[in-house]
Amino acid sequence: MLQLYFSPMACSLASRIALMEVGVDARYHQVHLTTKTVATDDGDFRGISSKGAVPVLVLENGERLTESAAVLQYIADLKPERGLAPAPGNADRYRLQEWLSFVGTEIHKAFLFPTFWYEDDGSLAKPRARIGQTLSVPAAHLADREFLVGSSFTVADAHLAWALMLLRPAGVDIAQWPSLKAYLQRMQARPAVREAIATEMALRKAVAA
Amino acid sequence: MLQLYFSPMACSLASRIALMEVGVDARYHQVHLTTKTVATDDGDFRGISSKGAVPVLVLENGERLTESAAVLQYIADLKPERGLAPAPGNADRYRLQEWLSFVGTEIHKAFLFPTFWYEDDGSLAKPRARIGQTLSVPAAHLADREFLVGSSFTVADAHLAWALMLLRPAGVDIAQWPSLKAYLQRMQARPAVREAIATEMALRKAVAA
Repeated sequence: MLQLYFSPMACSLASRIALMEVGVDARYHQVHLTTKTVATDDGDFRGISSKGAVPVLVLENGERLTESAAVLQYIADLKPERGLAPAPGNADRYRLQEWLSFVGTEIHKAFLFPTFWYEDDGSLAKPRARIGQTLSVPAAHLADREFLVGSSFTVADAHLAWALMLLRPAGVDIAQWPSLKAYLQRMQARPAVREAIATEMALRKAVAA
Repeated sequence: MLQLYFSPMACSLASRIALMEVGVDARYHQVHLTTKTVATDDGDFRGISSKGAVPVLVLENGERLTESAAVLQYIADLKPERGLAPAPGNADRYRLQEWLSFVGTEIHKAFLFPTFWYEDDGSLAKPRARIGQTLSVPAAHLADREFLVGSSFTVADAHLAWALMLLRPAGVDIAQWPSLKAYLQRMQARPAVREAIATEMALRKAVAA
């Protein structure tokens, strides 16, 4: 069985959503990112992945795959019939990779990551000044589209939906971009997305309690 | 013919290297990233791509593809026989995507980007404190490997070689990681890599002059 190392509401949520959308069972291991420990046994998370970051997907052969862009494509390709990624060779596959990269670099690593990990205003003034321009790109794209790529839900939507959800605690109100707000509501209405979020929000509250 | 919008020594260099390694001709359009203009005609670069970032690859059908991770895989797949990316379906294809994501998020967007665009010390203390841990990941991986993925040059190597080259002007001496230093020397000794760098360094000097 696949295993996913995750932290509640971190970017590994997109991988959980993808697993639930394709209907693949997995064992889930919660990680404390601040201490780099595995919650169940207090084990050293850097022994699982030297990056100390989630997601880490443990494959059936025991190999460990990291980085959302790779993990999400791997999960999508497990069940091609579910259509969570256009088939390789299809021009839309590159559009999927383009959106996975954009969410991972421009929204996550350039803005959400410093906001939640650096915290001090000195480190954050520049990223904050950029995020509006960044978000105008998916906002324009989604003005007349239901999904990021093609005409159905893909792992790029799992990735963007996660990032948009984290914008509010990061101090950005996406109501400024009506197309993004409507898109996030559509994504959050999907049963698999709703269940994944409910599971991780409950775990997050348990950590905070 | 393909067209590549680039800025000398920016991350679009990896796309130029990939085009030269696969032996595909392209028209190259230089972009001024600070003014967001196209050098040849002073045209509005945001009219080419609303992101205002390179690379932008204009495909034969006129569509525009952005994001290094997508552009590099597209170029590699033009000539599968050159082996610049493992075939889709091959387990190593996910390793390629993993490295493309790591270079794009952890080295480029978390460190090189703020270093060259934010400049002020307040914004840079945190990224600087992280970069050593980040670079230890590819350093360990390359301690006993010639290339990032499999046993031959891929577009992931084009991406990482570019990032490593930029570390010196960003104030990081990679001699601290002998495996990274040796790897970069091997990559820079490749004729296509050498020619791509020589072309862009000449253009960069012309801009500065």
